[in-house]
Amino acid sequence: MDTVLIIGAGAAGSVVAQKCAMDRDTFKHITLASRRIESCKKVAKMCKTPIEIAQVDADNVAEVVALINKVKPDLLINMALPYQDLPIMDACVETGTNYMDTANYEPREIAKFEYSWQWAYQDKFVEKGITAILGCGFDPGVSNIWCAYAQEHLFDEIEYIDIVDCNAGDHGKTFATNFNPEINIREVTQDGKYWKDGEWIEIPALSIRCDIDYPEVGPKASYLIYHEEEESLVKNIKGLKQIRFWMTFGEQYIKHLEVFKSIGLIGLEPIKHKGMDIVPMEFLKDLLPVPSSLAEGYTGKTSIGVIVRGKKDGKPLTKMLYNVSDHAETNKEVSAQAVSYTTGVPPVSGAAMFFKGIWSGKGVFNVEQFPSAPFLEDVAKRGLPTTIVDLAPGAQDELFSVKT
Amino acid sequence: MDTVLIIGAGAAGSVVAQKCAMDRDTFKHITLASRRIESCKKVAKMCKTPIEIAQVDADNVAEVVALINKVKPDLLINMALPYQDLPIMDACVETGTNYMDTANYEPREIAKFEYSWQWAYQDKFVEKGITAILGCGFDPGVSNIWCAYAQEHLFDEIEYIDIVDCNAGDHGKTFATNFNPEINIREVTQDGKYWKDGEWIEIPALSIRCDIDYPEVGPKASYLIYHEEEESLVKNIKGLKQIRFWMTFGEQYIKHLEVFKSIGLIGLEPIKHKGMDIVPMEFLKDLLPVPSSLAEGYTGKTSIGVIVRGKKDGKPLTKMLYNVSDHAETNKEVSAQAVSYTTGVPPVSGAAMFFKGIWSGKGVFNVEQFPSAPFLEDVAKRGLPTTIVDLAPGAQDELFSVKT
Repeated sequence: MDTVLIIGAGAAGSVVAQKCAMDRDTFKHITLASRRIESCKKVAKMCKTPIEIAQVDADNVAEVVALINKVKPDLLINMALPYQDLPIMDACVETGTNYMDTANYEPREIAKFEYSWQWAYQDKFVEKGITAILGCGFDPGVSNIWCAYAQEHLFDEIEYIDIVDCNAGDHGKTFATNFNPEINIREVTQDGKYWKDGEWIEIPALSIRCDIDYPEVGPKASYLIYHEEEESLVKNIKGLKQIRFWMTFGEQYIKHLEVFKSIGLIGLEPIKHKGMDIVPMEFLKDLLPVPSSLAEGYTGKTSIGVIVRGKKDGKPLTKMLYNVSDHAETNKEVSAQAVSYTTGVPPVSGAAMFFKGIWSGKGVFNVEQFPSAPFLEDVAKRGLPTTIVDLAPGAQDELFSVKT
Repeated sequence: MDTVLIIGAGAAGSVVAQKCAMDRDTFKHITLASRRIESCKKVAKMCKTPIEIAQVDADNVAEVVALINKVKPDLLINMALPYQDLPIMDACVETGTNYMDTANYEPREIAKFEYSWQWAYQDKFVEKGITAILGCGFDPGVSNIWCAYAQEHLFDEIEYIDIVDCNAGDHGKTFATNFNPEINIREVTQDGKYWKDGEWIEIPALSIRCDIDYPEVGPKASYLIYHEEEESLVKNIKGLKQIRFWMTFGEQYIKHLEVFKSIGLIGLEPIKHKGMDIVPMEFLKDLLPVPSSLAEGYTGKTSIGVIVRGKKDGKPLTKMLYNVSDHAETNKEVSAQAVSYTTGVPPVSGAAMFFKGIWSGKGVFNVEQFPSAPFLEDVAKRGLPTTIVDLAPGAQDELFSVKT
């Protein structure tokens, strides 16, 4: 187990390749493939040790199969677009190849993401005797593993989880997204939801807001949105009463989204323009800065954590597990801003866990189903340390006093 | 003199055709031409008496010449796009045809409008013994004629002119423009300027704002923008010390423009999208509601005027000349909202003045160079009455206290 095939050479895919290339004990053979070979060449030049590159259209199962047959990877790490999860999984099933990704499948035409499509591959992966590891980025990914760690090591009983995600960085642009704009804007503009007492409660997009006090960053306006890790965590964290996900957005960001929505610029249905069919959202993507272009001069920090409330030895307890990353530092290390960095480092640790046999099993798994402690130790060494603190009574009160 | 050729069947062009068709004593032969014959057919159905229709590409001088030779109009009324003023004027020169428009030429590629290009036709029109009447809409148009009327009949000396343009209508859309979005957004997002003591003073777009108390509407936030009639009025109103133009914009409107500007959506240079060259501004136009679609259910009023300060018999005097139009009423009359109506009715009066020989001359003229009183009388009968009031000392003080 030492050969990895990475598909996707965007901002986060570039981090995966560079980080793998820093650990040749674990990753002896590294191939990076993308629709645009130029992107692969650019990343290969940034890698500290030589990697292979290849051209592939990830929408095309036959092309992915042919590439897999050539590279013969022990694990395929999918860093392509979420639409492409299913064709890549199909290619893995066909060739008997282990699979990992960082974001769940969503159809291209509708803004809807859920695990059902990928969980449906359970039997196929079991039959083939292979492993699929879903959502091994930061959130989903590290956020799930923190919850698993809390369940295994810190609490007897977990009642409430709030995943809190703050990017307090400044890229100097009035509006830009930190990862693929299409995916980012879909995620934010769809209606929110959270899970409480056994059911999903839907809310209008960005309608619940509170100030959350983020470590090393301070209080920031945060909005309740739906995020995919909630779907697997409600299954895998036992006894849970409520789980919510919060993300910070600045005033300018919200203002831009409101306008995009109001004029139909985030529409997924093509409109006629001079006889051509143009999908507004795809055109918007081409108008906005490419996320990888934001690294240069990006300052400030990301501060992402989970706040867990529950009981230990019969007593109430609130703990926060978090990581803070600095845009300028990650840019110095791998020419990527911290949002790409926090997404790109965890799959490298996940792959290491898998190659070492610490994470194993036949079928389709979410990361919180695997041992958490060795992963957190490994990912800390690669650049994403976890801090765990007890929250004093009254801390984050504003968060818990939100009427939901 | 009884034959008119109207080119352009948009919202305002439709009003011109319908209003001409209501006065067959003056307009015995009416032809409406447009790039899209369907638009002409639709307008013809709305006319109270039968009109001719034709297909023409106004960018193509030879096509316009051919159409003129067929129709043999005494006057061509250009209601097409401002880019098309020059090819249409070329066709008029070639065929010896009198010309009228409502908006001055601006190049397609750059957001810059000025009369220089059209004034340069002076010698050609003189040589051919024909007349060009520029800017005979509402503003420019009626606004210029009010200034001429003030000069001829109300004042001995005019020092300050403020043209104030309020659309207090509600079309129920979060964002839409009342005329061609491309032209409207260009006009508003370019830097502002006004004329003072013999020179043009430039200001950043939308950087000077004050509340103006509009007749029948009340106080509204208004922004100093540059508007084309200022260029000819500083030449034709003698002794003028200052002229400014103000337009109302709501918060949502400004917010949308800011976002459009910030993400480059009003750019005139094509960007690459899936291998196609797409001009962002043109794509935006296709995203937004078609102005003619706003008439239905449009409520509220336009209130547009000129505030003139000067002297009469040695005493200081401030007068306001204005018109108020009601969206619902204009829609009832000609299925057009008031912005299209106020633009489309004045060229009909201008054409009547020309056919009656009240407006005459060889060369290129702005409307304030012609007799004002008979025009104002005529346009009032056709639906746009002028009210003239003395402003009490202190009225519109906020306007005059603006530091500029």
